[in-house]
Amino acid sequence: MSQVITTRLAEKGLTLPSPAAAVANYVSAVRSGTHVWVSGQLPMRDGELLSLGAVGAEVSVADAVRCAELCALNALAAVGTVAELSSVVRVVRVGVFVSSRPGFDQHAIVANGASDVMIAAFGDAGRHARAATGASSLPLGAPVEVELLVEVG
Amino acid sequence: MSQVITTRLAEKGLTLPSPAAAVANYVSAVRSGTHVWVSGQLPMRDGELLSLGAVGAEVSVADAVRCAELCALNALAAVGTVAELSSVVRVVRVGVFVSSRPGFDQHAIVANGASDVMIAAFGDAGRHARAATGASSLPLGAPVEVELLVEVG
Amino acid sequence: MSQVITTRLAEKGLTLPSPAAAVANYVSAVRSGTHVWVSGQLPMRDGELLSLGAVGAEVSVADAVRCAELCALNALAAVGTVAELSSVVRVVRVGVFVSSRPGFDQHAIVANGASDVMIAAFGDAGRHARAATGASSLPLGAPVEVELLVEVG
Repeated sequence: MSQVITTRLAEKGLTLPSPAAAVANYVSAVRSGTHVWVSGQLPMRDGELLSLGAVGAEVSVADAVRCAELCALNALAAVGTVAELSSVVRVVRVGVFVSSRPGFDQHAIVANGASDVMIAAFGDAGRHARAATGASSLPLGAPVEVELLVEVG
Repeated sequence: MSQVITTRLAEKGLTLPSPAAAVANYVSAVRSGTHVWVSGQLPMRDGELLSLGAVGAEVSVADAVRCAELCALNALAAVGTVAELSSVVRVVRVGVFVSSRPGFDQHAIVANGASDVMIAAFGDAGRHARAATGASSLPLGAPVEVELLVEVG
Repeated sequence: MSQVITTRLAEKGLTLPSPAAAVANYVSAVRSGTHVWVSGQLPMRDGELLSLGAVGAEVSVADAVRCAELCALNALAAVGTVAELSSVVRVVRVGVFVSSRPGFDQHAIVANGASDVMIAAFGDAGRHARAATGASSLPLGAPVEVELLVEVG
């Protein structure tokens, strides 16, 4: 069934990555009742960050959109470590942190990179509540970090 | 029944705004089980930000309190798009992001602007867990952003 | 039963503080259904912050780890105000905000201070989803703030 999700993403040119290994004392995703909570995901592909630095400074908004998209794909891969993606009945919340300096104001455009992945994967069930904010810095120097909460059935 | 909430707010001189229209791939609020998750709300009134810039820099703490209040009212209006306000049995969490520079330390005062709205609306059921933090920047240059989670019955 | 948790922590040299009093219109923790939501906790001991300033600037990473540890202990004490610690069946999410300047990239190391407390207290049930991000400033000038969500049975 999760094949449907993979196919939908492929139609948009998106590929689900292998989930990153659980690290130390925290894990990629936790299932609690009917919800799956996903750890903050970085724009990491094959162990390397796609871009490095603050958005609007070292990283362009266009590149940051690609980063947000990759974070979101990594988040879906993380869901897959504790639940079938086909069991997702609703994307509940997406949190997007954008590494940025004072004066930056394009958070919504960057965050759309993540939101669009949810719609590509789940259609109407992918429509979610969202908080996009600016971070003074992010782990490993990443430009974007994305958190995810989904309801599973 | 939601009339009660409106009246309580009016007694404090507060008016519930019309909810902002759902935008693109994310929505103002999602109901999942017995909870309503509200997207990060900005201090937007009639399509314009109440203030612009960082708190403690371009925006005074007093003005930021008004912004937090408006964000909170917008958050309640967003709850109303997916549930009756009178069905709220508990305000669970309020997240307050304060756009600020290094050295700013008045987050709690700003966040009280949002917290007070919850008590005005719901009395004891409005008492919530809260996280107030500093953001390097916020969408559209807003000084404050408020997220909300409520339990509905 | 919560004695077990206290003992486990003591074996690691960790002591559960007295919970901070609930302040004004928000509270230390809210129970909603089978979950306990804890307010953002600061590295406060006996009414004073352990350190003051940004991590990587005024505060060393090593000191910030101790701060994260203290925040996490305060968070567990807050859980105890609304539920027995022995009723915790899973630590669901830990949110770690690190006060920092552009270029800081050691968030994961700081956040481990909080994550390790959860494992010390709950063993495997302490493994959680986590988001670690950089804040431009934090309440009272704190270097670290930790939010907590646990499932209780």
